[in-house]
Amino acid sequence: MAGWETIEMKRITSRDNAKLKAVRALVRSKKERQERSCFVMEGARALSGWVDGSALPQYKLREIWISDKVNASFVSRFEEVGMPLLQIPNDFMENLSDCRTSQGILGVVEHAPEPLEFHSDQGNYLLLDRLMDPGNMGTLIRSAVAFGFDGVLLHGECVEVFNPKTVRATMGALPFSKLWKMAPGFFQLADESGYELIATAMEGGESLKGALFGPKNILVIGNEANGVSDEIFKRATRRLSIPLSGNVESLNAGVAGSICMCSMRS
Amino acid sequence: MAGWETIEMKRITSRDNAKLKAVRALVRSKKERQERSCFVMEGARALSGWVDGSALPQYKLREIWISDKVNASFVSRFEEVGMPLLQIPNDFMENLSDCRTSQGILGVVEHAPEPLEFHSDQGNYLLLDRLMDPGNMGTLIRSAVAFGFDGVLLHGECVEVFNPKTVRATMGALPFSKLWKMAPGFFQLADESGYELIATAMEGGESLKGALFGPKNILVIGNEANGVSDEIFKRATRRLSIPLSGNVESLNAGVAGSICMCSMRS
Repeated sequence: MAGWETIEMKRITSRDNAKLKAVRALVRSKKERQERSCFVMEGARALSGWVDGSALPQYKLREIWISDKVNASFVSRFEEVGMPLLQIPNDFMENLSDCRTSQGILGVVEHAPEPLEFHSDQGNYLLLDRLMDPGNMGTLIRSAVAFGFDGVLLHGECVEVFNPKTVRATMGALPFSKLWKMAPGFFQLADESGYELIATAMEGGESLKGALFGPKNILVIGNEANGVSDEIFKRATRRLSIPLSGNVESLNAGVAGSICMCSMRS
Repeated sequence: MAGWETIEMKRITSRDNAKLKAVRALVRSKKERQERSCFVMEGARALSGWVDGSALPQYKLREIWISDKVNASFVSRFEEVGMPLLQIPNDFMENLSDCRTSQGILGVVEHAPEPLEFHSDQGNYLLLDRLMDPGNMGTLIRSAVAFGFDGVLLHGECVEVFNPKTVRATMGALPFSKLWKMAPGFFQLADESGYELIATAMEGGESLKGALFGPKNILVIGNEANGVSDEIFKRATRRLSIPLSGNVESLNAGVAGSICMCSMRS
């Protein structure tokens, strides 16, 4: 392996640099992220999926930005990724970062989703219906990967997946998560593919305790305040409730979804 | 029931009012909350435990603040609580509130914890070990109440329970939660009382899947970055891991604790 000295690294020292402005826009602007199909992931651990090749092919690392405080041996891990490495002063990075204290490294990642095709023999999918909180969104994506779910479907106006708060809450799980926005014809496709549509409900559903699951499931977690939308609730082939003690009406959406996923995974 | 017109309500119109300054200090200052053993809960649902008498006696509602936008029929719910009602202009409330948009009502609550006495026959307790994130703290308190846990123990430097972010994340569950800071002699007391000390571990512990629990349990959830401290891990009588698929090392602390509590409750 070549030493870190041979890495081609470009050092940027002007705040007006066009590349720096472009990455700053990605951190701050949803519009920019959507137009470029790109987002920013911070931290070495979050980027390690491209070092060892485990990140899904629909997530393409395009650039790595590091600050002066990052040491050479650390940078060498990212050498073989073959990406443009851009170095900036520490205060530029702090200004760029969405974290209180930047780790000094971030990556620009392009997301190029593949068309949805349900696994034909068995599969578990998570459907998020108008989820609003970036922390919940990130936590659920993280749990879906942790419990081997095959993908996450987004229905209605959900919080943006690629905003920095959501990305951070995934704790590095995002590049292992297949994500789709639900397209017309989805419910028919799910039905024809033999999938159960399982809506969670605060009460009145089948109890999670003792519930058994078939090989093909789509678990629906609804909006934090209003639950699963009527449209999906009516189409659901099963309705599931987590039994709770008195004095609490519901669980946090990230918690409820994760408990159900934990029960459903084989 | 008397009409709302008969409620004794004091209207405050000066930003320099001493009572207004005192409640503002409670929202903003940890020191103030600790010195007065008081904190602020926002929203009508969060305060409903004092309307119907279900809040635990160690949580004492001391004042209710409402803004001009709150309508009279709403206020009447709080009439029989017999608390001082203080009314302020809407912009005062927005300034006071920790929420982006205030619901127009908040309560000042005093917390007077009772000494810890373990239930002798059976009980489930949650022990939070140096938990740092207010969202996780609030979510775990909410889940502990939801799963009928008998109380929450705080070990080491945890995030403050009564800061507005934590209180908000409990979603109204806080006044149903018994809370204690762990005192010296705790572990001996737990041991003598026949309680299992169950530490969660990212790996290497007994699998949660199929794990059976006795009648007396203390579940330990550790710091977000570093897990359960060595001190507690060594004392643990059981070690528990949630089996995860590849690519994710761990779950969110609030999720992991909630999944374990869901499994442990009878």
